[in-house]
Amino acid sequence: MRLLTALFTPRRVALVGASDRAGTLGHLLGRNLASFPGEVVPVRSGESLRDVPGEIDLAVVSVPATAVPAVAADAAAKGVPAMVVLSGGFAETGPEGAALQAELVAAAGATRVVGPNCFGVQNCDLPLNASMAAGLPLGGGGICLVSQSGAYGMAIYTLATDERARFAKILAPGNTCDVTIAELLGELADDPASATLCFLLESLADGRAFVERARAVTPHKPVVVAKTGRTAAGARAAASHTAALAGDTAIGHGVFRQAGIVEVASGQELLDAARALDGQPLPAGPRVAIISNSGGVGVELTDLLADEGLTVPELSPGLQERIRAMLPPFASPVNPVDVTPVWSRFAELYPALTDLLARSGEVDAVVPVLLQRAALDTATAEGLRDAVAGLRADGVAVPVHVCWVAPRDARPNADLLAEGGVPCFDWPARTARALGHARRYALARARTRPARPAPARRTGPTPTDPVGLAAVLAELGVRTARSRLCRTPDEAVAAAPPGVPAVVKLAEAAHRTELGGVRLDLRTPDAVRAAATELLAQGPVLVQPRLDGVEIAVGAVRDPQFGPVVMVGLGGIWVEVLGDVAFAMAPLDRAEARDLLAGLRGHGVLTGARGAEPVDLDALADVVVAAGDLLLAADDVVELDLNPVLAGPAGAVAVDWKVGTTATACAGAGSGATL
Amino acid sequence: MRLLTALFTPRRVALVGASDRAGTLGHLLGRNLASFPGEVVPVRSGESLRDVPGEIDLAVVSVPATAVPAVAADAAAKGVPAMVVLSGGFAETGPEGAALQAELVAAAGATRVVGPNCFGVQNCDLPLNASMAAGLPLGGGGICLVSQSGAYGMAIYTLATDERARFAKILAPGNTCDVTIAELLGELADDPASATLCFLLESLADGRAFVERARAVTPHKPVVVAKTGRTAAGARAAASHTAALAGDTAIGHGVFRQAGIVEVASGQELLDAARALDGQPLPAGPRVAIISNSGGVGVELTDLLADEGLTVPELSPGLQERIRAMLPPFASPVNPVDVTPVWSRFAELYPALTDLLARSGEVDAVVPVLLQRAALDTATAEGLRDAVAGLRADGVAVPVHVCWVAPRDARPNADLLAEGGVPCFDWPARTARALGHARRYALARARTRPARPAPARRTGPTPTDPVGLAAVLAELGVRTARSRLCRTPDEAVAAAPPGVPAVVKLAEAAHRTELGGVRLDLRTPDAVRAAATELLAQGPVLVQPRLDGVEIAVGAVRDPQFGPVVMVGLGGIWVEVLGDVAFAMAPLDRAEARDLLAGLRGHGVLTGARGAEPVDLDALADVVVAAGDLLLAADDVVELDLNPVLAGPAGAVAVDWKVGTTATACAGAGSGATL
Repeated sequence: MRLLTALFTPRRVALVGASDRAGTLGHLLGRNLASFPGEVVPVRSGESLRDVPGEIDLAVVSVPATAVPAVAADAAAKGVPAMVVLSGGFAETGPEGAALQAELVAAAGATRVVGPNCFGVQNCDLPLNASMAAGLPLGGGGICLVSQSGAYGMAIYTLATDERARFAKILAPGNTCDVTIAELLGELADDPASATLCFLLESLADGRAFVERARAVTPHKPVVVAKTGRTAAGARAAASHTAALAGDTAIGHGVFRQAGIVEVASGQELLDAARALDGQPLPAGPRVAIISNSGGVGVELTDLLADEGLTVPELSPGLQERIRAMLPPFASPVNPVDVTPVWSRFAELYPALTDLLARSGEVDAVVPVLLQRAALDTATAEGLRDAVAGLRADGVAVPVHVCWVAPRDARPNADLLAEGGVPCFDWPARTARALGHARRYALARARTRPARPAPARRTGPTPTDPVGLAAVLAELGVRTARSRLCRTPDEAVAAAPPGVPAVVKLAEAAHRTELGGVRLDLRTPDAVRAAATELLAQGPVLVQPRLDGVEIAVGAVRDPQFGPVVMVGLGGIWVEVLGDVAFAMAPLDRAEARDLLAGLRGHGVLTGARGAEPVDLDALADVVVAAGDLLLAADDVVELDLNPVLAGPAGAVAVDWKVGTTATACAGAGSGATL
Repeated sequence: MRLLTALFTPRRVALVGASDRAGTLGHLLGRNLASFPGEVVPVRSGESLRDVPGEIDLAVVSVPATAVPAVAADAAAKGVPAMVVLSGGFAETGPEGAALQAELVAAAGATRVVGPNCFGVQNCDLPLNASMAAGLPLGGGGICLVSQSGAYGMAIYTLATDERARFAKILAPGNTCDVTIAELLGELADDPASATLCFLLESLADGRAFVERARAVTPHKPVVVAKTGRTAAGARAAASHTAALAGDTAIGHGVFRQAGIVEVASGQELLDAARALDGQPLPAGPRVAIISNSGGVGVELTDLLADEGLTVPELSPGLQERIRAMLPPFASPVNPVDVTPVWSRFAELYPALTDLLARSGEVDAVVPVLLQRAALDTATAEGLRDAVAGLRADGVAVPVHVCWVAPRDARPNADLLAEGGVPCFDWPARTARALGHARRYALARARTRPARPAPARRTGPTPTDPVGLAAVLAELGVRTARSRLCRTPDEAVAAAPPGVPAVVKLAEAAHRTELGGVRLDLRTPDAVRAAATELLAQGPVLVQPRLDGVEIAVGAVRDPQFGPVVMVGLGGIWVEVLGDVAFAMAPLDRAEARDLLAGLRGHGVLTGARGAEPVDLDALADVVVAAGDLLLAADDVVELDLNPVLAGPAGAVAVDWKVGTTATACAGAGSGATL
């Protein structure tokens, strides 16, 4: 039996730890399972799962931690395909608990284990509530939630219930001793009822597998991730709370984006993004029409949409004329369309304008703002709901998101809209952010494609000396500055390239700049000799030609969560000062590498700022691709540093290059030429 | 009679346009004024204000627009100190309305006019509701709201009522034909009952006056500003909706920050900031303690606080020990303090931990997170409210802000807390942002001080030629690179400085770089001659020594809203590519200029990145100060551009300088030396 089936659509469920005593977890679970249409078999204290007659598809376990391995052994012996362990007291509590968790995994054999220390499993459509939560969110929707935080996950779907969001499935993976987050993603990806896959994560031990699968899923279904522990402080807080360390923030952002994942900063934003993505069409472009009964809120929403990369374009004269004919005097047909406070006409104008704008072909989304009296008017909400239903019936794929700015008394009208499939977002900030996520996903969906195959493995240790490493880089297509290692001033003078200024630098790369170990722009043999004499006191030197170009830092590291990742940054000292860097998971193809470069704030220096000639972006992208490929090809390389690469119209050349390998400390070579 | 008194604490109010007909504005206003404890004198159609016996402190006007100038004349004749004109149909509707508005102002004479096209005036304590809004927010608080958007302002204080925020005064200035936003700020600054001054602005015609006053107020009271039309799209939307254009975003951010104003991005954030600032002590430092019943939400809140520049520090071993003794096993005393889901002990633990942490001296704010069952428990809310009251009674000035993550059913407990003076913020994002604003205001309050006096005026036209302008700059203390204007190759060779490389550049500054009009690093007379010969074909050249240093762009412009403002940016091509620039209003003092430089993302290149020697920041700051002073001293200068200024350990020298004046197009001189 498939894991997805056993967890979410079991025929018979065993509740191991069932109890008639109120206040116990077993009692609570029994109550929550009461609505399950299949059979629930209680296994009480003193009874064994082995003695239950007939097949069991899912065992829900709430016995004390020390008793769980025996239950797992029973489940394995009986051939139960999956068990969900809600009991705590395992790896989250320390080494003893971790040992018990290992025992559980060993005992479970072929039985798949969700948890332990988890909140449970829910299928809102069946319904199945094998969880600690009282009640289920509304079913009939496509939202799935996988939450590493049980209590916070419950808070999110309680909010979802308040906001009438419709769910499909919910699962808390707990300590992920067996079934991983990545595996759950894969299972839900294959489930037709699961349309919008949301993950509230505190750690991501199987980060590379998760992102690889997400990349395969996002062209078909949105994957929304809230990863807490984003900041150093948050990571420390997470470490005190869960068993795994949070990963590097910037790397996470980069690889999530690359895989087309919608990343959000909070649980509430997770739900907002899910509501925007599930059950509404995606905006096919950035153009938004706003309909409002207050100019002020229209302007604020316009600002906040602009922050999200969306536009509120002026409408065509013809469309403005049609709108003007509908509106009272002094109302604005420009966009935001301001209907002014004509209370008596709200119920007519909001639906009519929404319909007109959605069918106009001039915008990609419509946001009616229901402020105060417009929100309090039930006829307006009903009209808007029916107008959107009419659009859908006619196949008009323009999303309609309501911005809701109203007192609490008006809430039933928001519920009416949400139940009719029109999501309402409180206040402009949440509205703009949710629509921004929908648009970003639409772009990601169009962009994301299968990863390039990994390059062939290299055999033998990777050379760390300047010349040997340059040869390896050359095999991968990376050009390096011509360099000669010199041990005397005479050698340096002889090595100086004819006709161009020379660079003399310490061969030992570590802290070369800080030690003042680079001499640029040496135009005469005497200058070369003087520089070499001075630097040779600290060690051998390299002599290179001075090259020109835009300085780019290219690197690759083996991340504990995501494996080989590349880094690009703009340029020399600015990388450190500005932190203008971007990351992606290797392997990349050239287009992905160009996309990565385009994401740098300082990207303009590559494309011809102030009349300069643009650099050869393909050549530069190929260096980025190669950096990742080296780590994929050579198991012994832990980091690669090409800094700077000098990029110009005729190509890209690394003038400093070094690797760190498992065998050596970081060694290297190269030149620090500047602009 | 003082304007503040007439508007907010009048003894007798005339309602001009009073009506008994339901559905009219006059009828609505009459109803809203019913709670006013003073006398309301109705002036109906066909009656005149002149005929009202006795003194009138405030006239509230709702007659049709065309009748308003006559009412103003009546008010002036009667000596009414102030009138509030709610009627629309003035400058917001076009040229005819603008003419009518001018007529109104002329007729009003000594009577001060608020509006027209405004929402009204409210004093929540009196109470006085001379506005279109039904009802008033709770009084007894210090929050004042000045809202240019009537309907959106009403939505904000409806939210405030829902969230039990306590207000003092509310005013909608409408078209500001007479009483300006800046004047209102000044009035409220002097009002002891007005503690937290909030402005929801769409335009700011008197921007300089507003910011100058705010700067005097912020050391005593917080000033919170939401300025819509922040983005280009928003500004266009605002222009279609109000009579004034929105200002330049980046300039606004800079001058608001300089004046110690708390700037927010939305109306909801405005209210959140106000709630955090009003009635709670300010956080004296960045350290926050979190108490939560869910690890997940604690980690998310830690992340979001870090985004705001706040910290969630590990507690001392001694304090951790005391907390551990209170907590159940597996709970975390580290910070976030995670009490785990021990439902039965919430009412004991939350108040006790809040008290212990607030008194510990180890944190500057305490955030109890009430999630789900903790929020549903009334005893916990009561205990927390009482614990905070106890802290205040004992003079413990550590703020307590509740993060509220709960279903709607739990709302009465949030209301209980808010009514007890403990603000609750929905979900972590709003909590973190509000606390961030409180901390930023605490910092601004400590930093803001009176502006430096403006420099003395210069007489006569400002020279725009390189030599004359350099002399003016020298008077202000700005060093410029030694330059000679040359018209022949021989002159250029003779002008080349001895012993250092020369720079030859086109004397005409406009588009010099794009035209390839700069030759750097000319080391021989032949090189100078060759460069000069080539460039002289396009016009006269300047010859300068080549200088080294970090490139900084310094500028000053005369902004339509804020008058003379300075700009700093990091350096050369990067200014354009990265947009890493910051603005402040002139005059600045040296400390402000250094603060401005410190706000640049790339500030690290000035303070010694990668082992470089730090530049002379005082010398660089003095250049920034002087740039602003030139615009204050010379009325004819509309812009000044010192780009680049080369900053080094020994000082700062402008190598390119040009001005735009009212008399000339932009002209200039200088050298584009690079690092």
